[in-house]
Amino acid sequence: MANTGLEGIVAATTRLSHVDGERGELIIAGFQVDELAQHATFEETTWLLWHGDLPSARQLDAFQRELTAERALPPVAVTLLRDCAQRRTDPMDALRMAAGTISLASDDARAIVVRFPTIVAAYWRLRNGADPIAPRQDLGHAANYLYMLTGDEPDPERVRGLETYLNTVIDHGLNASTFTARVITSTGSDLVSAVVGALGALKGPLHGGAPGPALDMVFEIGEASRAEEVLRKKFEAGEKLMGFGHRVYKVRDPRADVLAKAAERMYTRSGDMSLYTLARSVESTALRLLEEYKPGRRLQTNVEFYTALLLHGLGLDVPLFTPTFAISRVSGWIAHAFEQRAANRIIRPQSEYVGPRDRKWIPVAKRTDAAPKSESLIPNP
Amino acid sequence: MANTGLEGIVAATTRLSHVDGERGELIIAGFQVDELAQHATFEETTWLLWHGDLPSARQLDAFQRELTAERALPPVAVTLLRDCAQRRTDPMDALRMAAGTISLASDDARAIVVRFPTIVAAYWRLRNGADPIAPRQDLGHAANYLYMLTGDEPDPERVRGLETYLNTVIDHGLNASTFTARVITSTGSDLVSAVVGALGALKGPLHGGAPGPALDMVFEIGEASRAEEVLRKKFEAGEKLMGFGHRVYKVRDPRADVLAKAAERMYTRSGDMSLYTLARSVESTALRLLEEYKPGRRLQTNVEFYTALLLHGLGLDVPLFTPTFAISRVSGWIAHAFEQRAANRIIRPQSEYVGPRDRKWIPVAKRTDAAPKSESLIPNP
Repeated sequence: MANTGLEGIVAATTRLSHVDGERGELIIAGFQVDELAQHATFEETTWLLWHGDLPSARQLDAFQRELTAERALPPVAVTLLRDCAQRRTDPMDALRMAAGTISLASDDARAIVVRFPTIVAAYWRLRNGADPIAPRQDLGHAANYLYMLTGDEPDPERVRGLETYLNTVIDHGLNASTFTARVITSTGSDLVSAVVGALGALKGPLHGGAPGPALDMVFEIGEASRAEEVLRKKFEAGEKLMGFGHRVYKVRDPRADVLAKAAERMYTRSGDMSLYTLARSVESTALRLLEEYKPGRRLQTNVEFYTALLLHGLGLDVPLFTPTFAISRVSGWIAHAFEQRAANRIIRPQSEYVGPRDRKWIPVAKRTDAAPKSESLIPNP
Repeated sequence: MANTGLEGIVAATTRLSHVDGERGELIIAGFQVDELAQHATFEETTWLLWHGDLPSARQLDAFQRELTAERALPPVAVTLLRDCAQRRTDPMDALRMAAGTISLASDDARAIVVRFPTIVAAYWRLRNGADPIAPRQDLGHAANYLYMLTGDEPDPERVRGLETYLNTVIDHGLNASTFTARVITSTGSDLVSAVVGALGALKGPLHGGAPGPALDMVFEIGEASRAEEVLRKKFEAGEKLMGFGHRVYKVRDPRADVLAKAAERMYTRSGDMSLYTLARSVESTALRLLEEYKPGRRLQTNVEFYTALLLHGLGLDVPLFTPTFAISRVSGWIAHAFEQRAANRIIRPQSEYVGPRDRKWIPVAKRTDAAPKSESLIPNP
């Protein structure tokens, strides 16, 4: 019997992260996610994944200098992004295309990680009719990303909010994009190929590609007093509630707590808590109604709900949510690629054949128009 | 215990192809590979995979017209290929980059399949200092590929040789690139993303990325009388014999027979059988010595050995072998993507965590230089 989702099949051992869906626990290289995410810079977390421990001051300093040196894009990547902008290409497709060109200059892990924000920010500005802003050498990875989006130096609270987000989603077991990176690496292929494949997987709406709707729902509800009425209508209409439920977590996603805290801190500093308060209220009403309409299904708040709230608070528009997810996860993909290489075996599962056998060749002149068959994978003309 | 290669795990049911490694059998959509490969055009085999049956004359004619209409590349793809050529980029990387830009114009299965030969031929010419040759509307897929490489209309025997090759390698169960395409598709992502990820996997030397060495060995031996001496030296030195052994096939790879026959026919027509005769002699000596040096290992001639001989006979240089493999396999990747969509579940296996736990945050000023650790995935500076 085929396990088309490979659920429960252990496909790798790893020292990078551990997801315990029953206990609602996420360990990243030995740290509980909340312990790590609120303290570390993204550079520290990336180093931690790649080297197995936090960097010393000297190592961190050297790593930051190496990273900043490689931020600029090759001209052909900018040409490609201009073409994408003209055609209003999806930002994840544009990121995939431009990331693919990193092979032209380098196949280096640092070059890949550091160019993701440059690509995303450049494309965002081009798509909005503005010129890209060159990276600044004196800003850290997270701060420089925000700077390249707007040209304004971000305040420390926003930088801290973004660092926390990037740390929180940097790695998460064998999710589909990380697994893609490992399958590609298992053939002996290169890092850029692995990362480009992973980007293609992350784009899918069942993985990273649908983070907007949770926020849309909060905006649609508009004020706390309407939450129950709007949500009940959704349940009665059989709509799926966005931002709740996860294949692995059967209790509250530990990342949701980290991001909720980060969002709270950021909205508090901004002086306007209204959206945060509304989201909290929508969440608690949704959880109560989920228990009422889908008892025993154990559907809890997932990472998307507070991702949307936090990234919106950082000033990012919805189309930037998945690319920003990628800016973080790429460090995890690369760490998994290294780990796969260190103990490699090509990943090649089996399939079960359920098609016809013993067909004999018929010359084209003797064939009749096949009636549209149930087996046709695309519509027969 | 982790199954890092997923060996023996059934990850999908399929109507597309069936590999029986013990019987040495490959079924493609109901046909034994030799029954299909020697008769069909590549357009017919592609249609067969996508629609479940061979096309009627009317359907085939319409399909061919649709395909030829989409052969030209967008200008940005040519710009990118010129840049690749300047930097002597690996042809598989160049194909991956240019294929990624197909999103700009289309996400259509036909556009993807038909542009692969255009990209490969254009890049090959650019890398050799020549201008790309525009596709011809009056030639079939295989003939047009050979035409775009040289500008000469190929004779029917070479076209037939290439069609046979393309049909033979079009699909092969859940190999690593096909599996990559299915994992990416399982997230709800698009065809171009799936195909670009699969290209990254195919590039790896453990998958499609090392087809040259088998031919190098034949040239190194040079004449049949030297085969035993040269091969014995390789065995004594512990070298791996290229072109022999396969993870799945424990008997002769059925594709080797089809390609050997196609090569024989082609070399016969060309009037110079010397290379073919030499290769046959090298093969039989190699098989005899494999039985002597590695008894019971069941190492048989694989698809690479006669691929190299056939593609060389077609006039293709070694760096074109893997891209030409991709020109065929892309039809299989797309068929698998359709099949995955038709009964989808996101592919997300488990990992087993073997790293540390309960680490506590230490501020950077209090950290000492970590000694290079065995856990570091990349060298500690």
